[in-house]
Amino acid sequence: MENTSTIEAMRHSCEHLLHKAIELHFKGAIRAMGPATDEGFYHDFDYSGNVSEEDFTSLEKIISDAIKADYQIKKKTISIKEARHLFKGNPYKQDWIDMIEKKNSDPTIYIIGDELNPWDTDLCKGPHVESTGKIGPFKLLSVAGAYWHGDEKNKMLKRIYGTCFSTQADLDEFLKMKENAVLHDHRKLGKDLDLFVFSDVVGKGLPMFTPRGATVRRILERFIVDEEIKRGYLHVNTPDIARIQLYEKSGHYPYYKESMYAPIKDEEELFMLRPMTCPHHFELYLSKPHSYKELPMRIAELAQLYRYEKSGELSGLMRVRTFCLADAHIIAKPDQSNQVINEVLDLIDFVCKTLGLIYGKDYSYRLSLGDRKDSKKYYKDDKAWDNAEKILKEVLKERKYKFVEAEGEAAFYGPKIDVQMRNINGKEDTAFTVQYDFVMPKRFKLNYIDEDGKEKEAIVIHRSSIGCIERIMAFLIEKYAGAFPFWLAPEQVVIIPISEQNIDYANKVKLELDKAGIRSYIDSDAERMQNKIRKAQEMKVPYMFILGKKEEENNTVSVRNRNNNEQKILDFADIKNIS
Amino acid sequence: MENTSTIEAMRHSCEHLLHKAIELHFKGAIRAMGPATDEGFYHDFDYSGNVSEEDFTSLEKIISDAIKADYQIKKKTISIKEARHLFKGNPYKQDWIDMIEKKNSDPTIYIIGDELNPWDTDLCKGPHVESTGKIGPFKLLSVAGAYWHGDEKNKMLKRIYGTCFSTQADLDEFLKMKENAVLHDHRKLGKDLDLFVFSDVVGKGLPMFTPRGATVRRILERFIVDEEIKRGYLHVNTPDIARIQLYEKSGHYPYYKESMYAPIKDEEELFMLRPMTCPHHFELYLSKPHSYKELPMRIAELAQLYRYEKSGELSGLMRVRTFCLADAHIIAKPDQSNQVINEVLDLIDFVCKTLGLIYGKDYSYRLSLGDRKDSKKYYKDDKAWDNAEKILKEVLKERKYKFVEAEGEAAFYGPKIDVQMRNINGKEDTAFTVQYDFVMPKRFKLNYIDEDGKEKEAIVIHRSSIGCIERIMAFLIEKYAGAFPFWLAPEQVVIIPISEQNIDYANKVKLELDKAGIRSYIDSDAERMQNKIRKAQEMKVPYMFILGKKEEENNTVSVRNRNNNEQKILDFADIKNIS
Repeated sequence: MENTSTIEAMRHSCEHLLHKAIELHFKGAIRAMGPATDEGFYHDFDYSGNVSEEDFTSLEKIISDAIKADYQIKKKTISIKEARHLFKGNPYKQDWIDMIEKKNSDPTIYIIGDELNPWDTDLCKGPHVESTGKIGPFKLLSVAGAYWHGDEKNKMLKRIYGTCFSTQADLDEFLKMKENAVLHDHRKLGKDLDLFVFSDVVGKGLPMFTPRGATVRRILERFIVDEEIKRGYLHVNTPDIARIQLYEKSGHYPYYKESMYAPIKDEEELFMLRPMTCPHHFELYLSKPHSYKELPMRIAELAQLYRYEKSGELSGLMRVRTFCLADAHIIAKPDQSNQVINEVLDLIDFVCKTLGLIYGKDYSYRLSLGDRKDSKKYYKDDKAWDNAEKILKEVLKERKYKFVEAEGEAAFYGPKIDVQMRNINGKEDTAFTVQYDFVMPKRFKLNYIDEDGKEKEAIVIHRSSIGCIERIMAFLIEKYAGAFPFWLAPEQVVIIPISEQNIDYANKVKLELDKAGIRSYIDSDAERMQNKIRKAQEMKVPYMFILGKKEEENNTVSVRNRNNNEQKILDFADIKNIS
Repeated sequence: MENTSTIEAMRHSCEHLLHKAIELHFKGAIRAMGPATDEGFYHDFDYSGNVSEEDFTSLEKIISDAIKADYQIKKKTISIKEARHLFKGNPYKQDWIDMIEKKNSDPTIYIIGDELNPWDTDLCKGPHVESTGKIGPFKLLSVAGAYWHGDEKNKMLKRIYGTCFSTQADLDEFLKMKENAVLHDHRKLGKDLDLFVFSDVVGKGLPMFTPRGATVRRILERFIVDEEIKRGYLHVNTPDIARIQLYEKSGHYPYYKESMYAPIKDEEELFMLRPMTCPHHFELYLSKPHSYKELPMRIAELAQLYRYEKSGELSGLMRVRTFCLADAHIIAKPDQSNQVINEVLDLIDFVCKTLGLIYGKDYSYRLSLGDRKDSKKYYKDDKAWDNAEKILKEVLKERKYKFVEAEGEAAFYGPKIDVQMRNINGKEDTAFTVQYDFVMPKRFKLNYIDEDGKEKEAIVIHRSSIGCIERIMAFLIEKYAGAFPFWLAPEQVVIIPISEQNIDYANKVKLELDKAGIRSYIDSDAERMQNKIRKAQEMKVPYMFILGKKEEENNTVSVRNRNNNEQKILDFADIKNIS
């Protein structure tokens, strides 16, 4: 695949062909703007008529013809006055020209075709390809609405999305991924599989988990709490709100203010919804003195956190306004840092393996560094930064992990190792993180009495193991397209009695499954068996137990799984071992 | 025991003897005020010197002598002018006289002893006993500080508490209960047993559960969730905040405003910390249509709730500003109400039994009724109230429960059955509740499609099973004086190796306990065994496993329990069965 600038130029040029095609196809449409994007391009235009995907054939025909014609694309610098004249009658272009004028720069235009009699001319900074023949295979994708400048006070325009690639193979792969992404979209599956819902009156970005979704959530929560306790974590429970003074003490307020909900004022006090757990855990640590023998002390919590995301940034369970983080703060002696970070990475390995996430495919490692020059964003202590970065790098190298380094992605209190998850769209998000903190121990005086009887300063490792429950659920729903592994499935078995005569036997089977801790239900609706099987498959229940006269007589069940229509026979004594 | 007014008069008279005794004992002390209370009496006075329990012997001597003298106590009405004169030089009495004057009433005084040469005279409304000889056995209890009129802007006065009863037996019983209450006080035990802490910077009434306390909490939470799921409850998870519109829809806002935290304002929206779960569950129910076949639908959640209690009302885990309620809303057909309420009371029975709570001793039933005349506080629908009360009464009678009726204690949407828990001080608090609601189904349009295809209105039963986790923890800590039953103990076994040579064997024992899911830890501190045993007993760990050379050779452990110093031998193979 080419470098980004070439593909970007190609996409931008294709977008110019699109806006011309729009004007030719939709009489009276006024072009507004359109850029190249990571995934293709789009164009926004002002048109009062109807625009649908049915128009794509005509538009694509015009664009194809322009590509075949291999028109030259030339850049030209003009004066503000010339630009005003060229785009008179187009308020959107005049708006752009206003901005160019304010910046005291000269407008540039791109001319497609013959300069004296051009096929199209547009106000644009570029870059573009040399001629339209250089534009690779393209496709228009979808129609949407968009406000001018993204501001809802402005007029709503029409938007058409498209993309182009250098080769047909690249385009086909992209389209296949897109199609797949729709099938795997956790927002759609969340609804179809009855996992979570939103309510306008409750509020945007505040998911409500239905019984099925809450079951998955509970399984994940108990899994991680139990595993952490096994590994020496001390699970605690601290309140989701605190006085503003706590966040002033930690330094999160006002630095983190933008992400926090507004204060709650009662009895002359200001309370904040917590955006993170650290200061609560530090206060708990400070409630009594500690000896070196207690370190490393691994304070953990399934903590509900609150961050105020702008409504435009919310997306299903991936971006929410409240989430439950499997959080922990490991307070350790400085010489325990290597051991502690290794332990955390072991736990993350174990979690990934349990969830079926594959290193390299589903996730990768990133070392997030601070910027020594930016003392506004990062705590100033070059020596401490050097030391912390060295420790994190050493661990990553010892473990033979490949990792990328990302400057300017650290926390303000130190560098971190991020476990980057890649979703079905290829988009990367930080799922888990291990952070080295040399600032909070000073701010909170997180000390311990050492072997020599002296009080010394601890270090803190902030970490998450399974990340936010909401986000990992979103990842897992997409990864498995809702067909959760057996242990995570909200319902593991559907028991389908063929007739009313088999209800008693169905109850007996259910009791046996209950005893074994297997989640099941009986579908006793007055419906055809085939319908019940179809419903169970749609809900992606791992197994269907079908019980009729024959099964009852033989003390067996007929088992189908969600993926195929094969049926096998299981003895009653063996049903408790299904997995 | 006498009626309240007699004992109140006696206590008030004893308080008069106390203030006189104070003046005689502390030179320069100025009497301020003092009432009879539910538990005795107290007197506040202005004195700059030191006051301690060491003064009680002298004070009690003066009071005893006055009781023996059997002085007459007489009431007399005087003029404002006379009162001013009588108490000149006492600013507190002058302050009282100001208030009496404002109300246009006449001051009354009580004279103890001969009217012409009284032992004491005080401004007082009464009532009092006829003579000091009628005052029963008394005792001074404690010393504290108190602001004049309870206002911290005023001067801090000294306060002495005391009590008196009709008989020595009643007094002894009270003193024993008091002593017991101190030993059982969950606030003290919470600290001593390292269960929870508070932090000023986090905020009052916002408990932080330490690892030990969080373990108890988690056990209770998982117990109730698992039990409810077994009984057909659908556990969900909904956000702790919502738009104010949700509470306007339910009618909680503004009626419930006083108990709610102030709104959070972001992006022109107002969000509220939820004071209850009901509207969230109703919104979840409304996310799709429902058939009569799905009813009763038991929507349950371990919901963190937020109610803004005044700082003066906060008390340990009993009165907090955030708590986790094991809440549920059962949406049912009207003809299912009896069955549903019975089911809930069955569950409450089971919970009480599991927690070791005894009917009659620890808890009792109360039927809380509305007041038909108060249509401001209670939804106006006489027929619906009659019907709901009838249903609740029927169930209570069917179950042969004794219950008291409490007018004006219902919810605004209907009557309820309250399970009243009695704490170690004899104080009653509602622990669990079953409420019949005929209002919310209308407000939220909680309908279902009935067998005849018609849309019908459901009823709602609001209920809690184990109540608030914080409050039930407070009850249990007090009931068991911190010595939790085995299954609830944060640590069930302490393993105590006698010497370093036994550490390996200790690890083997721990592994066996881990496998059996028994919570244990090894006390490998370099300390004497007796100290370790004492520490474990102080922490009320149910069992101590002591391992030395002999135990290791014989593959046994020596077991002690927390209550006595007896020791018994257990084979290694049997340790997993300890309970």
